[in-house]
Amino acid sequence: MAVRVGILGATGAVGQRFIQLLEDHPVFELAALTASEASAGKQYKEAAKWRVNTPIPDDIAEMEVVGTDPSEVGDDVDLLFSSLPSSVAAEVEPDFLEAGYVVSSNSSNDRMAPDVPLTIPEINAEHLDLIEVQRDERGWDGALVKNPNCSTITMVPTLAALDQFGLDRVHVTTLQAVSGAGYDGVTSMEIIDNAIPHIGGEEEKMETESRKLLGSFDGAEVALHDAEVNASCNRIPTLDGHLESVFADLAEDATPDDVAAAMREFPGIDLPSAPDQLIHVFEDSSRPQPRLDRMRGDGMQVSAGGIQATANGVKYNCLAHNTIRGAAGASVLNGELLVEEGWI
Amino acid sequence: MAVRVGILGATGAVGQRFIQLLEDHPVFELAALTASEASAGKQYKEAAKWRVNTPIPDDIAEMEVVGTDPSEVGDDVDLLFSSLPSSVAAEVEPDFLEAGYVVSSNSSNDRMAPDVPLTIPEINAEHLDLIEVQRDERGWDGALVKNPNCSTITMVPTLAALDQFGLDRVHVTTLQAVSGAGYDGVTSMEIIDNAIPHIGGEEEKMETESRKLLGSFDGAEVALHDAEVNASCNRIPTLDGHLESVFADLAEDATPDDVAAAMREFPGIDLPSAPDQLIHVFEDSSRPQPRLDRMRGDGMQVSAGGIQATANGVKYNCLAHNTIRGAAGASVLNGELLVEEGWI
Amino acid sequence: MAVRVGILGATGAVGQRFIQLLEDHPVFELAALTASEASAGKQYKEAAKWRVNTPIPDDIAEMEVVGTDPSEVGDDVDLLFSSLPSSVAAEVEPDFLEAGYVVSSNSSNDRMAPDVPLTIPEINAEHLDLIEVQRDERGWDGALVKNPNCSTITMVPTLAALDQFGLDRVHVTTLQAVSGAGYDGVTSMEIIDNAIPHIGGEEEKMETESRKLLGSFDGAEVALHDAEVNASCNRIPTLDGHLESVFADLAEDATPDDVAAAMREFPGIDLPSAPDQLIHVFEDSSRPQPRLDRMRGDGMQVSAGGIQATANGVKYNCLAHNTIRGAAGASVLNGELLVEEGWI
Amino acid sequence: MAVRVGILGATGAVGQRFIQLLEDHPVFELAALTASEASAGKQYKEAAKWRVNTPIPDDIAEMEVVGTDPSEVGDDVDLLFSSLPSSVAAEVEPDFLEAGYVVSSNSSNDRMAPDVPLTIPEINAEHLDLIEVQRDERGWDGALVKNPNCSTITMVPTLAALDQFGLDRVHVTTLQAVSGAGYDGVTSMEIIDNAIPHIGGEEEKMETESRKLLGSFDGAEVALHDAEVNASCNRIPTLDGHLESVFADLAEDATPDDVAAAMREFPGIDLPSAPDQLIHVFEDSSRPQPRLDRMRGDGMQVSAGGIQATANGVKYNCLAHNTIRGAAGASVLNGELLVEEGWI
Repeated sequence: MAVRVGILGATGAVGQRFIQLLEDHPVFELAALTASEASAGKQYKEAAKWRVNTPIPDDIAEMEVVGTDPSEVGDDVDLLFSSLPSSVAAEVEPDFLEAGYVVSSNSSNDRMAPDVPLTIPEINAEHLDLIEVQRDERGWDGALVKNPNCSTITMVPTLAALDQFGLDRVHVTTLQAVSGAGYDGVTSMEIIDNAIPHIGGEEEKMETESRKLLGSFDGAEVALHDAEVNASCNRIPTLDGHLESVFADLAEDATPDDVAAAMREFPGIDLPSAPDQLIHVFEDSSRPQPRLDRMRGDGMQVSAGGIQATANGVKYNCLAHNTIRGAAGASVLNGELLVEEGWI
Repeated sequence: MAVRVGILGATGAVGQRFIQLLEDHPVFELAALTASEASAGKQYKEAAKWRVNTPIPDDIAEMEVVGTDPSEVGDDVDLLFSSLPSSVAAEVEPDFLEAGYVVSSNSSNDRMAPDVPLTIPEINAEHLDLIEVQRDERGWDGALVKNPNCSTITMVPTLAALDQFGLDRVHVTTLQAVSGAGYDGVTSMEIIDNAIPHIGGEEEKMETESRKLLGSFDGAEVALHDAEVNASCNRIPTLDGHLESVFADLAEDATPDDVAAAMREFPGIDLPSAPDQLIHVFEDSSRPQPRLDRMRGDGMQVSAGGIQATANGVKYNCLAHNTIRGAAGASVLNGELLVEEGWI
Repeated sequence: MAVRVGILGATGAVGQRFIQLLEDHPVFELAALTASEASAGKQYKEAAKWRVNTPIPDDIAEMEVVGTDPSEVGDDVDLLFSSLPSSVAAEVEPDFLEAGYVVSSNSSNDRMAPDVPLTIPEINAEHLDLIEVQRDERGWDGALVKNPNCSTITMVPTLAALDQFGLDRVHVTTLQAVSGAGYDGVTSMEIIDNAIPHIGGEEEKMETESRKLLGSFDGAEVALHDAEVNASCNRIPTLDGHLESVFADLAEDATPDDVAAAMREFPGIDLPSAPDQLIHVFEDSSRPQPRLDRMRGDGMQVSAGGIQATANGVKYNCLAHNTIRGAAGASVLNGELLVEEGWI
Repeated sequence: MAVRVGILGATGAVGQRFIQLLEDHPVFELAALTASEASAGKQYKEAAKWRVNTPIPDDIAEMEVVGTDPSEVGDDVDLLFSSLPSSVAAEVEPDFLEAGYVVSSNSSNDRMAPDVPLTIPEINAEHLDLIEVQRDERGWDGALVKNPNCSTITMVPTLAALDQFGLDRVHVTTLQAVSGAGYDGVTSMEIIDNAIPHIGGEEEKMETESRKLLGSFDGAEVALHDAEVNASCNRIPTLDGHLESVFADLAEDATPDDVAAAMREFPGIDLPSAPDQLIHVFEDSSRPQPRLDRMRGDGMQVSAGGIQATANGVKYNCLAHNTIRGAAGASVLNGELLVEEGWI
């Protein structure tokens, strides 16, 4: 039976990706679209400037957009995906949770809150039980689950695969696509024939979120993984797909072949949007490349390549599609996990 | 009095930069241009497909190109700049050295040879005395000096500034411009909306050349610096200017302010092509950027920015123009040092 | 029943597109792959550097590549698609025709030969009967059909729709993608932050091929359409999709609405690779755009937009995917027409 | 003796170009910088986000920005350059004119007003005498001169050179750089791997402004040139430099050589910012190219190339730097003409 879902902030870039991913979804049926007051009351096709490279689905085009308020979203909606700007989300998400909605949110607020599960289903599905703690502490009927930042998601599956070798120190440098800043986030004058060595707040997100994702959960709280993560974030003139260069110090010996095997064999999860294999490992050291590899597994697979030994561990590159695996697809996958685990 | 110079491999991309830099040079007078046999005998303007963004100098346009052979370059030429492909240079440079020419070479062969000085004048001018060792061992009348790879030069001045704080481990990831691969090196289909996480041989060059440049010289040999350098090299859709993200572990405490001061105060050198200040440090954490900052100091200054503390030291970004400070300008500066130190 | 097909020049950029388009084709079964002698005998995955953004089909990856010679292609192959360089095609295609093969060729040689049909199935399918003339004159058992150049195909469907209003003079300027020059055709140094106002031979192709495509066929020869076509061709930093600005003088009055209707209603054709509608007309004057619209109709639909009246007719923009509708897909569609019309 | 000048709208992209061009100007001394109320009272370096690739001049960095109001600009300023948005300019420029200032404006308002001279000094310096008419009609003490739109300026010098052959009909298609839309005008998501076939209002500007520039002036009014100009405007992923493909019908016979000679010999003007030669004509049909040729004549020279005969005249390409010759430099040159002609 279909689960009725809504999108909070449906007109933006990530909102449009949600609509694209939910078209023909086997479980979710799109039943509500919210946006700011200026758009409320309009048909979706009037409210949104559609920029995704597949046509807007006909039935969605005609749907009426409502305000981002619990009173405007129908009672028969079971799950909300949120792609609101984090400042807006910080104000509005609690209203939906008090009203009893389950929210799978891509917004960055509250990701590090002790009682909010931050999950990648293949990595730490068990953290979802933080919802019990959350309900106790906040008195909410609903439930709030977050997915990490796009640059964090790209790296963490590979780090999880390395953890069996004693993950110790990590140095990661990102080459991030412009879509990560939203449709209007990076001007052409800023980025053509250029690169920008700074993305506000991004490094701290990578350094903290990754340790929560890899942390252990004892039923009451998540203990951050004790690896030291150092991140340097750069924007480059690429449309989609974050490429990252990782150096990982390992406590135990592991050859590049061991590491490749650990990545390839890292278990996936049986959910509709999950790729068959979580991490694809290239033999060709010139891969992964953003344009060629971002759509592997319909944009949900992570790729790695160029694995080489260093004095203290390994270095390699990894890649994921930042607005699919790194944003809208991440929230949808968390939504599927919520259904699978019986929270909806 | 003018020093008469020649360019080995004058028609290629770096060769053209040499011509641009030598136009109106206060010391050097361009007297010989060599190229492959196919070009020998032609006027330079016929032999080269000129692609630099300043017009080809009139007198150079009419000069006859000769073969890359000592018998074709006049005896009255005192110094040769080499931008030959390394496989060609490995064969041809010894001929010129036996014939008594002084060669300042940008080609990558022999950079790590124990008796070949690898120099950046501001960093290790004293290594030039390896020429004595070289002459003893090889029996050459001439002298061979190398400058490091473009990606190495971008980083090493900043590492040299950090060395007073006990430089220990370095993790560097590069975002390199397409011009580093030569004019035809990267196709547009390969790099538009893309990035390539591999540049053949580049990582090893950075990891070894940097330790030689920072090494100590006792008059007989260079002891490599004992820092561990780990490099990951990427190509991005930028025309000129390599941007690098560096993490440096330091043995001693140093705040970002200490590091910024050490970089700003790192001594320059009094040579015609040297910038007044070797390293410009930006306060603005979104700088340096390749397009905005590569031409600082006429392309000879290194920039740094985004200096932040890490658990074991600092992280920061640095930038240099890869075909000026990182190639042709590097060789010219070494040539100026050779004159200054009396080797010519 | 499946028609067995081969690809002449299967390892190049267009050859790879052929393989992508023929995977899961309802009528064609790929049975032969040819390449230069250097590749003959290798498995396809070894011979080709695969650069298309979908994985190489497993069965094709293992196929053995043979030389581009009739003796090497099996007798049981019914139809050959050719994406050979035109100089090679001019030498080799006649051998295949003498040997009795039917060849649907994308190569530019012989497109304007009086006895060679140059066809776009929706525009001038009836020209296919030139094959009778061709066989009479050349004594071939086989048959040679050509599709036009990518820049011609982009424009001609819209001109065909205008012809009812008395197409008179045409001025067209192209903004062409780099893939039109082949994978290695345009270097990144040539085109990033740049445009090139010249593509060798392209303007003449547009000016002549379009008049043959729109010409009338009396069963014996094609009379060129008497419109005057003036073309100016430019390369821009876009990967795929040629955008063209057209000014068309019309003998009769036609409003932009008349023209839009004529384009929308222009009849398609019932062939497997043909789009439902040949020309999509946008209301939004900022469309079509290469990245957003090149994949309409799986890359086989032409788009138009920005239709406005001029003193003597109309101006508008049009777009098509240059390596699908403009190359490999064009040949496949001609192949489907050959089957449909009973030539195979 | 120096003429003291001010810039209206000094913090924007064109405003920054004005500052760059006025640094070390032989005649003009920069004495006033205006911006919106939000910036008034700040030092220029605080008010403007400096993005030009030369450092901000030290003395300008410290200058105080004032409001865009005649009462705030000193009486000792003789000439104002305006780069205000046209809607703001339409409101504010009259205030300055009533207050007696001479204004050389790049803003698009009033360009086609019958009593406002629209001038390119090399083309129609004599139109400046419209100032007499303007003063009569408007009762202003000051004087308002406009320069045309960047896309118009690129083409008009070449059309002026053709006029001796009876310029009749023109079809022009532009490939315009993103800087033409201002620093934030085109997002990276809009233009990377893309092109946009529409620039609001641009085609009409080219079609009308060019006829005014080429029109004849009888001392009382300008009669528009009777050529028919048809324009189609496109945005491409280029930073600076508009490239245009022109088809010109000519009443008289003129070979490509005649046309090239007419362009080369078109007279320049003796003003400080004017190039020695107005139009550079390339023999190489692959030129002009934006990145290679936009800085010819310090960005003030127009380039042409690819001249070929058509049935009714010629076709060719032309190029100019859109924010120098096409904007700030155009206003500065008009300012120099105002001084030369004694209006200041």
